[in-house]
Amino acid sequence: MGTQAQGRADYVGAVLGDFVARFPREDASATLRHEAKRSLLNFFGCALGVARDPAVETAIRVLQPFSGPGEATVIGRPERLDAMAASFVNAVAANFLDYDDTHLETVIHPTAPVAPPILALAEQRGLSGAEVLHAFLLGAEVECRIGNSVSPGHYARGWHITATCGVFGAAAACARLLGLSGEQTWNALGIAASQAAGVVENLPSAAKNVGVGNAARNGLFAALLAQQGYAAAPAAIEGRLGWARAAGDEPRLAAITEGLGERWEVLKNTYKPYPCGIVLHSVIDACLDLRAEHGLSADDIAAVVVRGDRLLLARGDRVVENERDARVSIHHSAAVAFAFGAAGVREFSPPVVMDPKIAALRRKVRAEVDESLPVGAASVTVETVGGRTLRAVVMHARGSRERPLSDRELEAKFADNARLGGFNGDVERLIEQVWRLDEAGSLRPLMSLMSGQGAAGAG
Amino acid sequence: MGTQAQGRADYVGAVLGDFVARFPREDASATLRHEAKRSLLNFFGCALGVARDPAVETAIRVLQPFSGPGEATVIGRPERLDAMAASFVNAVAANFLDYDDTHLETVIHPTAPVAPPILALAEQRGLSGAEVLHAFLLGAEVECRIGNSVSPGHYARGWHITATCGVFGAAAACARLLGLSGEQTWNALGIAASQAAGVVENLPSAAKNVGVGNAARNGLFAALLAQQGYAAAPAAIEGRLGWARAAGDEPRLAAITEGLGERWEVLKNTYKPYPCGIVLHSVIDACLDLRAEHGLSADDIAAVVVRGDRLLLARGDRVVENERDARVSIHHSAAVAFAFGAAGVREFSPPVVMDPKIAALRRKVRAEVDESLPVGAASVTVETVGGRTLRAVVMHARGSRERPLSDRELEAKFADNARLGGFNGDVERLIEQVWRLDEAGSLRPLMSLMSGQGAAGAG
Repeated sequence: MGTQAQGRADYVGAVLGDFVARFPREDASATLRHEAKRSLLNFFGCALGVARDPAVETAIRVLQPFSGPGEATVIGRPERLDAMAASFVNAVAANFLDYDDTHLETVIHPTAPVAPPILALAEQRGLSGAEVLHAFLLGAEVECRIGNSVSPGHYARGWHITATCGVFGAAAACARLLGLSGEQTWNALGIAASQAAGVVENLPSAAKNVGVGNAARNGLFAALLAQQGYAAAPAAIEGRLGWARAAGDEPRLAAITEGLGERWEVLKNTYKPYPCGIVLHSVIDACLDLRAEHGLSADDIAAVVVRGDRLLLARGDRVVENERDARVSIHHSAAVAFAFGAAGVREFSPPVVMDPKIAALRRKVRAEVDESLPVGAASVTVETVGGRTLRAVVMHARGSRERPLSDRELEAKFADNARLGGFNGDVERLIEQVWRLDEAGSLRPLMSLMSGQGAAGAG
Repeated sequence: MGTQAQGRADYVGAVLGDFVARFPREDASATLRHEAKRSLLNFFGCALGVARDPAVETAIRVLQPFSGPGEATVIGRPERLDAMAASFVNAVAANFLDYDDTHLETVIHPTAPVAPPILALAEQRGLSGAEVLHAFLLGAEVECRIGNSVSPGHYARGWHITATCGVFGAAAACARLLGLSGEQTWNALGIAASQAAGVVENLPSAAKNVGVGNAARNGLFAALLAQQGYAAAPAAIEGRLGWARAAGDEPRLAAITEGLGERWEVLKNTYKPYPCGIVLHSVIDACLDLRAEHGLSADDIAAVVVRGDRLLLARGDRVVENERDARVSIHHSAAVAFAFGAAGVREFSPPVVMDPKIAALRRKVRAEVDESLPVGAASVTVETVGGRTLRAVVMHARGSRERPLSDRELEAKFADNARLGGFNGDVERLIEQVWRLDEAGSLRPLMSLMSGQGAAGAG
């Protein structure tokens, strides 16, 4: 049609397809494999933490009549669903509180859409932990690289990037696990392009869950269709009328393919210590430091001034009317850090948010721009009732790329989430099994433990 | 958050939600109800015509393991699937050849995404034909109006509007059939906004099917989730970070709500007499006229010149290498019209496209721009072997809004499709049942006949 003939290597989907289909398991470094396990441990904990939330129960109730045989675990739940429905529910749960992982350059939560369908497939088909880990790495890598190519314009335009790019990652991961060829994987990614959906406007609502759940469910669907011969346009991702241009502006295609298999986006994954907006994390750290160092309690606080860059103020300086506001509030974050010495799921739950004592403490917090502070930093100054002025500055929050959570901290977060979700299985054993995932001949024992229903196979 | 408080009537979703939930059945005119039946008759025929196509069989094979109890008919097939899976497959089939209906202002194929989920729901729950017809009217109206609000920029940007707007129509139709409140319907439409997907780049591939099938399946999903309490952002459609701005430019919101319930987009629906690009229809009409009037056969043709506006030439002047090219080729359309006196599914199928005699005839056809002809018109001049020069001009093609297909013509198209799809049921009885749909106490007998498996309940 008048354009120059393109070679296979000119198509983003072909390059990604070959990478996903062929990158050898033995070429994934120990560091990479370990990061994959950290991502999965964090993922499982987040899903367990909300397993009894009405949003999760509603998703199960709606999908149950539309599920084939229940071959896949719903994390923390007695119900079993088919692999597509379980993928939907587990993705919804993992991302529900935005307490899951973050790829900071794109703001993608990488694991929620990618892990559920491969866990479900592996459980259904008795595949090994090593296969799952490798499929996860490749899928998450594809997801974040496609995200890089359309950032930041794509999100700024209104696309919920975890959902829109998640479906590519899920398709890629499932394609690898199903053993699709490079050509079939190319088609799976192209089919994903016709399923990428989810808008930022819906973030403060249950409709967010649907975008993220669909990314997981439809990524699996794309891979299964490609396996059975469904094709897509060669340039479904980057073509003139393809996804990247439709959903944004001019994609930076080099960001997708440059250094593929050499530089890994997955290694940039970060994990939240607190279930609230990531810009608030350095504020919480500073408050916790002050509280611990000076033995403060809520009653000691006369006034608090939080200083940070414009982004912190723009995101976090707000009146708190409900739980959702609290999770993006400088005032609430500081208040609970001083009051409880903690800022976990409980501290952002309705009883604490509505507590008059906490509301009073929130009113003592004032936020100010300090142009001298870099993005991600925060300074907190406390005036005590006794007349002292105390100050702490945090340049990099816990959980940032500069100060990543340690494995022990991730374990503690997992245990905390498991407790919050009412999980009554053996938490230590579960953690141990995730760290040893690459030795598991079958995913079934782990997933059985994850249901929390007491049933367990051999390790 | 600094913006003025909005009243309920300021939200597009609220206005549409109330319209869909409340517009009385008795207020839909006989003309409207009849147009709904014409749309459905055309829809059923298109789905029957390709019921044995590998694309349909693949979709069934992939979805069968992920289907709950088979409570819904797959048109022209023995398999039964749950309502979501059947919605997917029936939408794919109806739109597969783009032989279905067209809302010309948006290029939406309105019925393929909207009819399948309400037919499936009605079959599952034993609902009446009158309820289905009314839900269809309201859903298709919402779909086309949302399409108007983002046209033509949305499609031009790369969004396959049948898929992206189809999910809103399907959600609305299902919401009405399920008896959702205005508020719940508003939420269903907002959930649909997080599921709107499908790109134009994928149109010449099976990935197109996935976008259209998902629109049907996910519209039902949106309504079921809203029924169970899932909410969406109030301005999920039109908000600053909502679907319409993310997927296009500034939406013309008035196009959605103005004259709602008074002016009907559904009345502008058109039906194709030929399974090829709509711009070619006047070319075919002119050739058929010449052939009939002058008793021409293929052997009489020395040369053909087709004249039309720039759009006709841009879309249709191309070398034919395969079936897909043929369906958008001036040359092939003219050749089969002269050779067979027909331009149906058979005339665009691979054996005819690859026939050397037809290829030779195609080479005798030349296309030229004639600036004096309006959009949609065509002039055809034939030089015969005997030295005659014959000319026909068609200003409005059969099937256009100016020359709509009659009910009898739609019946003939349906019968032709049924035959092509190998349907072995009673075609006359089926047509009769569609015309009498509003008298059907239950959809089950009709859907049973539509399976073509010989089983039939009482009418």
